[in-house]
Amino acid sequence: MRKLLEGVAAGTLAVDAAARQLETAPFTDLGFANVDHHRAMRDGLPEVVLALGKTPGQVAAIAAEVFAAAGRVLVTRVEPPHLDALQAAIPGVQCDIHARLAWHDPHPRPREGNVAVVSAGTSDIPVAEEAALTAEMMGANVHRHFDVGVAGLHRLAGRIDGLRAANALVVVAGMEGALPSVIGGLVANPVIACPTSVGYGASFGGLAALLGMLNSCATGVTVVNIDNGFGAGFMAATINRLAVAPR
Amino acid sequence: MRKLLEGVAAGTLAVDAAARQLETAPFTDLGFANVDHHRAMRDGLPEVVLALGKTPGQVAAIAAEVFAAAGRVLVTRVEPPHLDALQAAIPGVQCDIHARLAWHDPHPRPREGNVAVVSAGTSDIPVAEEAALTAEMMGANVHRHFDVGVAGLHRLAGRIDGLRAANALVVVAGMEGALPSVIGGLVANPVIACPTSVGYGASFGGLAALLGMLNSCATGVTVVNIDNGFGAGFMAATINRLAVAPR
Amino acid sequence: MRKLLEGVAAGTLAVDAAARQLETAPFTDLGFANVDHHRAMRDGLPEVVLALGKTPGQVAAIAAEVFAAAGRVLVTRVEPPHLDALQAAIPGVQCDIHARLAWHDPHPRPREGNVAVVSAGTSDIPVAEEAALTAEMMGANVHRHFDVGVAGLHRLAGRIDGLRAANALVVVAGMEGALPSVIGGLVANPVIACPTSVGYGASFGGLAALLGMLNSCATGVTVVNIDNGFGAGFMAATINRLAVAPR
Amino acid sequence: MRKLLEGVAAGTLAVDAAARQLETAPFTDLGFANVDHHRAMRDGLPEVVLALGKTPGQVAAIAAEVFAAAGRVLVTRVEPPHLDALQAAIPGVQCDIHARLAWHDPHPRPREGNVAVVSAGTSDIPVAEEAALTAEMMGANVHRHFDVGVAGLHRLAGRIDGLRAANALVVVAGMEGALPSVIGGLVANPVIACPTSVGYGASFGGLAALLGMLNSCATGVTVVNIDNGFGAGFMAATINRLAVAPR
Amino acid sequence: MRKLLEGVAAGTLAVDAAARQLETAPFTDLGFANVDHHRAMRDGLPEVVLALGKTPGQVAAIAAEVFAAAGRVLVTRVEPPHLDALQAAIPGVQCDIHARLAWHDPHPRPREGNVAVVSAGTSDIPVAEEAALTAEMMGANVHRHFDVGVAGLHRLAGRIDGLRAANALVVVAGMEGALPSVIGGLVANPVIACPTSVGYGASFGGLAALLGMLNSCATGVTVVNIDNGFGAGFMAATINRLAVAPR
Amino acid sequence: MRKLLEGVAAGTLAVDAAARQLETAPFTDLGFANVDHHRAMRDGLPEVVLALGKTPGQVAAIAAEVFAAAGRVLVTRVEPPHLDALQAAIPGVQCDIHARLAWHDPHPRPREGNVAVVSAGTSDIPVAEEAALTAEMMGANVHRHFDVGVAGLHRLAGRIDGLRAANALVVVAGMEGALPSVIGGLVANPVIACPTSVGYGASFGGLAALLGMLNSCATGVTVVNIDNGFGAGFMAATINRLAVAPR
Amino acid sequence: MRKLLEGVAAGTLAVDAAARQLETAPFTDLGFANVDHHRAMRDGLPEVVLALGKTPGQVAAIAAEVFAAAGRVLVTRVEPPHLDALQAAIPGVQCDIHARLAWHDPHPRPREGNVAVVSAGTSDIPVAEEAALTAEMMGANVHRHFDVGVAGLHRLAGRIDGLRAANALVVVAGMEGALPSVIGGLVANPVIACPTSVGYGASFGGLAALLGMLNSCATGVTVVNIDNGFGAGFMAATINRLAVAPR
Amino acid sequence: MRKLLEGVAAGTLAVDAAARQLETAPFTDLGFANVDHHRAMRDGLPEVVLALGKTPGQVAAIAAEVFAAAGRVLVTRVEPPHLDALQAAIPGVQCDIHARLAWHDPHPRPREGNVAVVSAGTSDIPVAEEAALTAEMMGANVHRHFDVGVAGLHRLAGRIDGLRAANALVVVAGMEGALPSVIGGLVANPVIACPTSVGYGASFGGLAALLGMLNSCATGVTVVNIDNGFGAGFMAATINRLAVAPR
Repeated sequence: MRKLLEGVAAGTLAVDAAARQLETAPFTDLGFANVDHHRAMRDGLPEVVLALGKTPGQVAAIAAEVFAAAGRVLVTRVEPPHLDALQAAIPGVQCDIHARLAWHDPHPRPREGNVAVVSAGTSDIPVAEEAALTAEMMGANVHRHFDVGVAGLHRLAGRIDGLRAANALVVVAGMEGALPSVIGGLVANPVIACPTSVGYGASFGGLAALLGMLNSCATGVTVVNIDNGFGAGFMAATINRLAVAPR
Repeated sequence: MRKLLEGVAAGTLAVDAAARQLETAPFTDLGFANVDHHRAMRDGLPEVVLALGKTPGQVAAIAAEVFAAAGRVLVTRVEPPHLDALQAAIPGVQCDIHARLAWHDPHPRPREGNVAVVSAGTSDIPVAEEAALTAEMMGANVHRHFDVGVAGLHRLAGRIDGLRAANALVVVAGMEGALPSVIGGLVANPVIACPTSVGYGASFGGLAALLGMLNSCATGVTVVNIDNGFGAGFMAATINRLAVAPR
Repeated sequence: MRKLLEGVAAGTLAVDAAARQLETAPFTDLGFANVDHHRAMRDGLPEVVLALGKTPGQVAAIAAEVFAAAGRVLVTRVEPPHLDALQAAIPGVQCDIHARLAWHDPHPRPREGNVAVVSAGTSDIPVAEEAALTAEMMGANVHRHFDVGVAGLHRLAGRIDGLRAANALVVVAGMEGALPSVIGGLVANPVIACPTSVGYGASFGGLAALLGMLNSCATGVTVVNIDNGFGAGFMAATINRLAVAPR
Repeated sequence: MRKLLEGVAAGTLAVDAAARQLETAPFTDLGFANVDHHRAMRDGLPEVVLALGKTPGQVAAIAAEVFAAAGRVLVTRVEPPHLDALQAAIPGVQCDIHARLAWHDPHPRPREGNVAVVSAGTSDIPVAEEAALTAEMMGANVHRHFDVGVAGLHRLAGRIDGLRAANALVVVAGMEGALPSVIGGLVANPVIACPTSVGYGASFGGLAALLGMLNSCATGVTVVNIDNGFGAGFMAATINRLAVAPR
Repeated sequence: MRKLLEGVAAGTLAVDAAARQLETAPFTDLGFANVDHHRAMRDGLPEVVLALGKTPGQVAAIAAEVFAAAGRVLVTRVEPPHLDALQAAIPGVQCDIHARLAWHDPHPRPREGNVAVVSAGTSDIPVAEEAALTAEMMGANVHRHFDVGVAGLHRLAGRIDGLRAANALVVVAGMEGALPSVIGGLVANPVIACPTSVGYGASFGGLAALLGMLNSCATGVTVVNIDNGFGAGFMAATINRLAVAPR
Repeated sequence: MRKLLEGVAAGTLAVDAAARQLETAPFTDLGFANVDHHRAMRDGLPEVVLALGKTPGQVAAIAAEVFAAAGRVLVTRVEPPHLDALQAAIPGVQCDIHARLAWHDPHPRPREGNVAVVSAGTSDIPVAEEAALTAEMMGANVHRHFDVGVAGLHRLAGRIDGLRAANALVVVAGMEGALPSVIGGLVANPVIACPTSVGYGASFGGLAALLGMLNSCATGVTVVNIDNGFGAGFMAATINRLAVAPR
Repeated sequence: MRKLLEGVAAGTLAVDAAARQLETAPFTDLGFANVDHHRAMRDGLPEVVLALGKTPGQVAAIAAEVFAAAGRVLVTRVEPPHLDALQAAIPGVQCDIHARLAWHDPHPRPREGNVAVVSAGTSDIPVAEEAALTAEMMGANVHRHFDVGVAGLHRLAGRIDGLRAANALVVVAGMEGALPSVIGGLVANPVIACPTSVGYGASFGGLAALLGMLNSCATGVTVVNIDNGFGAGFMAATINRLAVAPR
Repeated sequence: MRKLLEGVAAGTLAVDAAARQLETAPFTDLGFANVDHHRAMRDGLPEVVLALGKTPGQVAAIAAEVFAAAGRVLVTRVEPPHLDALQAAIPGVQCDIHARLAWHDPHPRPREGNVAVVSAGTSDIPVAEEAALTAEMMGANVHRHFDVGVAGLHRLAGRIDGLRAANALVVVAGMEGALPSVIGGLVANPVIACPTSVGYGASFGGLAALLGMLNSCATGVTVVNIDNGFGAGFMAATINRLAVAPR
């Protein structure tokens, strides 16, 4: 803004043009979506496209626009029809259909730091992978610890040093969602708790796990939405980035 | 009623006939539905038919009856089977299948005033279109502002003057439903907040957005049911009509 | 903004000063509250102070600051301790303790238009009065219709013409919250439905009335939060202002 | 029991046999269901079979057993596969697939009294028919009043005398469920309110209508489960039987 | 209405006067309440006053007005301050402070028929008494069966014949609310199930009992709001009246 | 029953008397409560009196009746006014006011077996003591392990052998309620999980802990109501009794 | 551990090896699941595999690994695709597709003791069978009592002695879930209450039954998750084992 | 552990003593609480004492024990009675009664880094202060931005650079809880969203704000429990520590 004002002061920028520029953010309007090209600089990740509720055509058009501008793209909550459209629009796009992610990243950044992604059960792996792949795409080294839920604590025993070495941990669990409390009591660095909808009956689609995590008696635990592996991985990688390249 | 009573007093109307008339409202009984022909006068919109829960045959019969009496008709929550029956019953019927609307309006009224329809995300567009098309059919000029959610406020920047020019605004949002609060803080005219079921996990089918909007800290915001684009558009057009042709 | 930019272009405003002005909105910072002096122009109402959750001292300080700047002030959700502090800080302040409102408005604007405030029961009157007093302070003529709930429809009979004459209606009801649907079917102008927490058992603090109003089968009905008489009255007065002095 | 004890006292019944008889209620054990042949005498209706959650084979076997013992049978919550099995097992069985009822009643009892079944909307008719057919099978004259919801009260006007003539009324409504309150205020006899799952968004599968009815401000209104047309019709017919043939 | 129209036809009633009469229902407007004098004829009970949410002064004024017109009055949900005001306004008023009822009925009608009021526990007695006293005031003989909950079925054993003799039964229960299902399986006449807020933890203020009763597997059971002893007693007495004096 | 029938057969018992005996269960009717003297034999515990919702006078009268018949008595959910009445009615009555228990047991049975009572936090101790005292009164040896929640697993380390030695374990926890899952994974004998209302915000009065426990991924865990220490202790003692004195 | 430490003290075990052994629990890591071979010893049941949320390939691989180590295996929540994969991986595997169980147990242990499994309705049988088959596989004699719900108590009459003979009872019920309270009042041994999702409307997927059971007024009743027949059967068999082979 | 094992191998540590040490974690058992002296090293904060649900005596004893061992202590959710006991037990203890915190920290660590604490309204300040004071005690520089909610976005304008400079941000909001989404869209570093119970009606004690934050459409936002300012401040300070002193 200061640069713009200096242009106005210097007479190299007309008042009208300056007013227009101040009002116009740097995004591309596709008619049904405003693609934001500023975010990559800010977030360490190009615009992420949430496929949920969008038509395959919309998803493909937005993702292609992002890729053209940013050189890489990540799409979350991808269903098979979205994938078909993405593959037609962006040659070389990769996907993990269980994690419901698609991405194209021809020039991946080098990985650094240490993020741990832990799952309580085998059924929680798709959400855990969503977190792990997101964090990797943001440049984090990721260590996976799957199926180490609280009903068999000895499975955690050999892993404690590994967990303590992580700058940030994503802990994914359905059913009663108790694992983040246990791990939060074992480590000093931030734990991002991610409830899943794995369960039945009184799990109410992940509500039980969500409430359990929000009421965690361990310190250093914060929570994301049910099944939001992307959000958890994003947060862990953001913290990891601060730890390896502090401001 | 007074006219009727004068007829009785003058002896031009028999007591029996008057009693029957007082008891009989001006509607047509189809057996499974009472079609109300008074409403058009009152509401500025012919009887609207809610297709939800009705069979295709019922929807088509009611809509045809409305069209015969009022010269136009609007059907909401239309699914493809309803549409087939409508097209058979009312030649020339139009539809927007994403917005789940069908209508036939051969002699549309001229549009006037200014209604803004704003959507937070691309996924909210079907509900936003339901609002916009409803308001247009009721005679409002409608300006659409789509995909301008709160996580990228700069997308709103160039639009504030446009939003302030509207007599009434429909603001459609899913997930956390925060956009009506932000826009309510920027404009002086009424904001009709419409939550959508876009989201997952703890959105609980739109409940999170609904609660967010009901608790809005901005003044001048009222709320309709989840995904009720029709109701929001109807209210905005009603207010717009008051503003351009006040009583 | 344009004026400011012209100053920069003309050299009468330094770049630094302009940058600072662009960043500084016209509000007063009391340390614990940012009092917004722009709103009166925008909303037709001076900054409204929500006393809920604030200490008496905070409420009195904010209200006095608003009154000093705007010449009038309205405080909602006032409890007796707030009132004591307000009376000390703003001599002449008025209040309706049932409606939990306090206000000082030495030069009230002339009233115009027509707003109806309807209550289903006697117990709903405090919320209805909150709506009515708010609308009056915003310059609306208000007509009250109290205790006319749906279990005795004949009580509505003599009032229908009065209700139809209003530019906007606030309909306040607890328990099953059915009155807005009934009135929405009788009038053409906007109905603002305000649920109250009056009830017991399965009313769940007003939830039953709220859900009833959100699911209203009548068109032209929108909803505010439980017991939010202020918000309902504000919206009705805003619509009334459009109707009497359209843009 | 006294007769049995007298047999024991007289020596015509052995102690062992008496003990066994006291322990054995008069029902037939099919292995997966205990069919109760006492109920017909008690309830005025043969054992009713709830098909929900049962396999087609189970439903057909239970219904055939009931029919063999009682001479008639009513099956509720029938889905098409159940119907196929029933038609094979009980020749001549009738059904109303929208109301999800099947029945066989070769020697229907004469109808008497007066039950009114009222529906708010066209979409509520399946549940209303479930109530009406149940009441008819229990021997009640039934008068149907469909699509007379509260948003168009004039549709009720010509029907009030008819409603007041009923010994009991079933009032079926979805969405906000306000109709029972309105009718409860117009009639003196019992109103059985039956919420339906018709609606969307914040209707939460009929919860809004259910809560509305439970909080009815009208006296003489009681409520059954969502979509429980059978239960409502059963209760209305039971009351009607008391009114025409009092004890 | 016919009589009025005949007056108009005969010229004995002016058009204006007739119009006014058609619009004016027979109620007294106290400003804050519309007292309905029609109801006594219709319902077999004078206007009942719900004290909940009303000030003592409002309750006393409304109750006195009702008593003056109807010769008797019943007030529900009475708290001690209401009682003081009532005793001042209506000399001789009686009350049951546990049942939260106050009434004055100098010329009680003779009692007839048979209503049973059953409570599951001792803690449910206040609500059960509210039902029993209401039914008695409406002219029913009432038989009380208290503390006979399902965890000790033998307590029901000696009472079955008594329960079967009732024209209608009110069954009051908190906690799991199972008693209406058990009794509904033992009797043929209508059971009005009344949940109470007795319980703790997952009873959620009576929600558990309410849901249990709505899902009753017994036929002939309908439900009222939590703690609504008045509504349950009113319904039972209405049914009892039909049984003893059928239309 | 057989003995009674034999008396009838032998002529030593009249038919009328036998009928009366079959209908009359062995309980004392106090008017407001039916005290059940059979239970002590059946349950290993005299009738337990739940004070919740009862007046002090009712509690004292019931408890005195129980003590007179059974020689001991336990009262749960005791508030101070109940205690005063109990002390007047039953000299020597003991109490633990935090656990809300009062009891009188002059001839306690010898303790045997092994029940563990575990609490997650210090704040859960009142409910844990309610369980422990109940189990002790039923004749169990009880070992207490308090403040050993999941956020500090090392606190459990030295206790595992002790926990495994118990025939049954009560595990009491509020907040996220994770402790039963962890302990359920460490022991083979039954775990009775008891959620408490300790917590705030999204604990929703113990709902989070309750849901967590119901969704436990460990086997051998069952759940009682929120804050129901009595029920948990009762169940653990019942299992302990089976283990030490099997049938 | 002591043995290991003695090895270290004796020099027969290197420090490094001992540290590794202390950290390594005896489980097999399949990459996506940690199979726990300790549990069989501890629980009397080989590792149980929960198929819910796992792919058929994952389920088959885990089950085969368990079977190879333990000589038997039980899989719960099996859907047809899981079954196909299991049959390919473990020749001779058995299944009950209604109970959603698969198992292979070539050398079943002898059955002993007495567990009763009771279902309220025919529709609850699949969950009841899940409990019964689980308990049988754990070595319990199981007696089934199906379709004996509370609306027809006489169906229980002839079964009371049988129920009282059981060391532990599983009581399965949907809808209002009242049966455990009734049975809990009739027997002295532990009752495991298992709610089912059988029902509709306000049963909310089994929530009504769950809340009913948690609020049971009978002592000796604990609760498992909705539709968790496995957990209920497991607990009952665990108690039965204690009763027949006490510690 | 390795050191201990080496002692055993070297014979300097007896097997028995080693076993005991392995089982005994370094905590002090006060009978009602296990005080954990390890945590300070691990967490950067001495044991924090949650006063909620504890007696004043318990709180004071635990806090004194912590202070004796760690040289400082923080107590959360302090009510006035707790404070009295704390002041007696720990001379010099400080408190902020609005933030419900008490602490004693005679040798505070130097502050470094940058944490921002933002509140939407004045009523949210107590929770915001709880976060800010916690973060300061953990060694973070804290910048407060209070009363900058979304309904007046211009109040944020002059603060954006300040917000972007923070290593981590705590954003506290009640009512609709929209502020974290807006700020999450403006900054790149982690946002910890803390809902408050400020609000009324459909805020349901903070549930609306909680759901809004969990459904945030902005990336880089995680959530803590309602009113958990301590947890939010703790997390922000933990991230800040990583950023200034990375591993």
